Amino acid sequence: MQTSNNSIQTPQSVDLVIEARWIAILDTEHVFLEHYALVVHADKIVDLQEIATARKQYLAKERISLDEHILIPGLINLHTHAAMNLMRGIADDLPLMTWLNQHIWPTERAVVFDDYVKDASLHACAEMLSGGITCFNDMYFYPSATAAAVSQSGMRASLGLLVTEFATNYAADADDYLQKGFEAHDGWRNNPMISSVIAPHAPYTVTNKTFEKVVIYAEQLGLGIHTHLHETRHEIVHSQEEFGVRPIQRLSELGLLGPGFLAAHGVHLLPQEIDLLHAYGCHIAHCPSSNLKLGSGIAPVADLVAKQVNVGLGTDSAASNNRLDMFTEMRMAALLAKGASEDPTSLPAHQVLKMATINAAKALGLDEKIGSIEIGKQADITAVKLSDLTISPCYDPISHLVYTCGREHVTHTWVAGELKYSNGIYANIEPMELKEIVKKWQPKLAQHKH
Amino acid sequence: MQTSNNSIQTPQSVDLVIEARWIAILDTEHVFLEHYALVVHADKIVDLQEIATARKQYLAKERISLDEHILIPGLINLHTHAAMNLMRGIADDLPLMTWLNQHIWPTERAVVFDDYVKDASLHACAEMLSGGITCFNDMYFYPSATAAAVSQSGMRASLGLLVTEFATNYAADADDYLQKGFEAHDGWRNNPMISSVIAPHAPYTVTNKTFEKVVIYAEQLGLGIHTHLHETRHEIVHSQEEFGVRPIQRLSELGLLGPGFLAAHGVHLLPQEIDLLHAYGCHIAHCPSSNLKLGSGIAPVADLVAKQVNVGLGTDSAASNNRLDMFTEMRMAALLAKGASEDPTSLPAHQVLKMATINAAKALGLDEKIGSIEIGKQADITAVKLSDLTISPCYDPISHLVYTCGREHVTHTWVAGELKYSNGIYANIEPMELKEIVKKWQPKLAQHKH
Repeated sequence: MQTSNNSIQTPQSVDLVIEARWIAILDTEHVFLEHYALVVHADKIVDLQEIATARKQYLAKERISLDEHILIPGLINLHTHAAMNLMRGIADDLPLMTWLNQHIWPTERAVVFDDYVKDASLHACAEMLSGGITCFNDMYFYPSATAAAVSQSGMRASLGLLVTEFATNYAADADDYLQKGFEAHDGWRNNPMISSVIAPHAPYTVTNKTFEKVVIYAEQLGLGIHTHLHETRHEIVHSQEEFGVRPIQRLSELGLLGPGFLAAHGVHLLPQEIDLLHAYGCHIAHCPSSNLKLGSGIAPVADLVAKQVNVGLGTDSAASNNRLDMFTEMRMAALLAKGASEDPTSLPAHQVLKMATINAAKALGLDEKIGSIEIGKQADITAVKLSDLTISPCYDPISHLVYTCGREHVTHTWVAGELKYSNGIYANIEPMELKEIVKKWQPKLAQHKH
Repeated sequence: MQTSNNSIQTPQSVDLVIEARWIAILDTEHVFLEHYALVVHADKIVDLQEIATARKQYLAKERISLDEHILIPGLINLHTHAAMNLMRGIADDLPLMTWLNQHIWPTERAVVFDDYVKDASLHACAEMLSGGITCFNDMYFYPSATAAAVSQSGMRASLGLLVTEFATNYAADADDYLQKGFEAHDGWRNNPMISSVIAPHAPYTVTNKTFEKVVIYAEQLGLGIHTHLHETRHEIVHSQEEFGVRPIQRLSELGLLGPGFLAAHGVHLLPQEIDLLHAYGCHIAHCPSSNLKLGSGIAPVADLVAKQVNVGLGTDSAASNNRLDMFTEMRMAALLAKGASEDPTSLPAHQVLKMATINAAKALGLDEKIGSIEIGKQADITAVKLSDLTISPCYDPISHLVYTCGREHVTHTWVAGELKYSNGIYANIEPMELKEIVKKWQPKLAQHKH
């Protein structure tokens, strides 16, 4: 058969074509595409095409066929303390103040220096990559050490420049925290994989004076703000006693609220406080497992969503979860919203998947770059195999992903177009390295367990 | 070196010795043993010894060393409908009555005959065995077909003799259900792996007259009773309108309550109703994921436990969960109890592991036989590997099991001394068989999805 010269197209060279059974698009028209190819060149998604078309159109350095899998945007963990990963399960089933005063804080004072933070954060990165998480928003001491771990792992992160009043190994006072934070920020300024937010720890650990400085610096540097807010009833009572108002009102008066403001938790919120969050365009990092485990309560997520407050999902740390697992958080968030509101239509699967991806990207000011599978965005992609016999059948891949799958069904995690994890193997982390990290630190941490 | 003849003991021949890093005992003195061997002969646990001692004392046909694992009693799923496994995710995120009227019931009318029940139950058995579940308490049409699947898989089950008023493919009316139930019961009477309970479906689907018959038959045959109770607010309102009392009061007046009475759900309970359950020695099958997903609410588990009502855990069916996964239910139950009561000490890990094992055995009247690792009991044992790097470190194996592990960490499931599942392989189920089951039934089920 002859073909005219006109109909012959020269195939375009690209780095990677992933042919998938499903691709989660999550826009209003198509929740998912079927039998499509995702085309990657360098660090970006450059096309989405039917498989047959993509085969003609692209000459790929690598072509992968995932015919039982769904591709989803890389999951974003919107609130965590990665370096607490080696404190996983060190003290469970305890009252909050016993947990903090007798276990977490003494352990931190004794062990937390930059070498610990680098090692434990690398361990957390390994856990997250294997569960399809490509980006996380962190808050901890020694953020430069966390940055080093992030860079080794090949993940993306938004790192908090932690500010609090109390002296630690890391910093002496609020000004010292700020100073050290800005030095860290300068250190990764030219790294496209790491961004910064200013992270005043919480209303009960930061003074008005420091919050005022935070607002000024955030504006000057164009940075967002990440803090714990309305996590416990105790925090609210304390604020009313000390400042005469609830914490969110205090932060509002201090000028913190705005579209760059991300509050972790938001468990106890009055209707007018939800309105306030909406009016200022603030974001919530909902951490359902942690809120339950610490006995903090159940956040009013159905109400937040109804009032169009942008909500993402976070694991919180391994000390209060004890998994950095966004599959568990997605399932927990969807189920808890339904149970708490006694409405099974609350927080459907596609909405909770958005929380774990594009909503989190918005909260971090990164939604132009990541959070969805769109041409031009970074190729941060997670592949999940939906066909395991014990979890079959699959009628709807999005609901299957949220209600049935676990992170053990993640087979590939790409970040910025590069495969960083696949089937038990990391691009840049050796299993022996993880083993040595645990072996080195576990005895030191256990020693300070009272 | 010489040894006197007196000190030489002839080693005793046994079938199996499992040497384990930890063994969960869960009695009041030892929550777990370390570096012990569990000795099995025929279908029973015959000894628990330090590893070195067991090596001298026993000549084992098979000796397995699990030096990074915990052995736990086989998990017991106290409330499920195994044959709904192929309806997993067929209709999520819908209002309860839409879900039932437009999806579940039409599908059941069209597809549910005994061949479907056999196939779908076998699929459920495979899912459960791979997640360390050795026994389940079921309620569905065609229990003899479920029994056939149970026998093939090698699991243990308590099968409900379902009773309801409405006509189905299976039975015409309540008397026909009872008749068919007793025939099924006769069929497995000599099978030590299968026991029976009478299972009137729910207060809103069973008349007083039928409940009265159930009470008489239960007494005559020495069988327990298993029903859905106080699952939704709607059920309670309906009962008040129709009978002038709440369902539990009605059942109490009809004589159902007693130590053989197991109520699934118990989501909405007044304090005096909890007292009533305690006074009669009734049992609750708590199904946290299902209660959340269907928007039923959150059961007052902390209160039930405080009042010493015996509570076990159930997955409910794959249509409302969507996993038959007792690890998920243990974690969910522990976290939800803490969050709902705002008390992080509520339902600690060792207590929730008891719910998933010995408490469930008590509820089924099987606690002399199964539910704990004790000499003389059946060797229903699950091994869980606690050392995966991404979930390390492990400070406390029981808390690690509940808060950190997933069912993917189960490596071996023994039932009555026989290995029925290990690392992806079943003793009596071929992967191809499961694949064919899904291939055969999924299109038929999807067709009746409206």
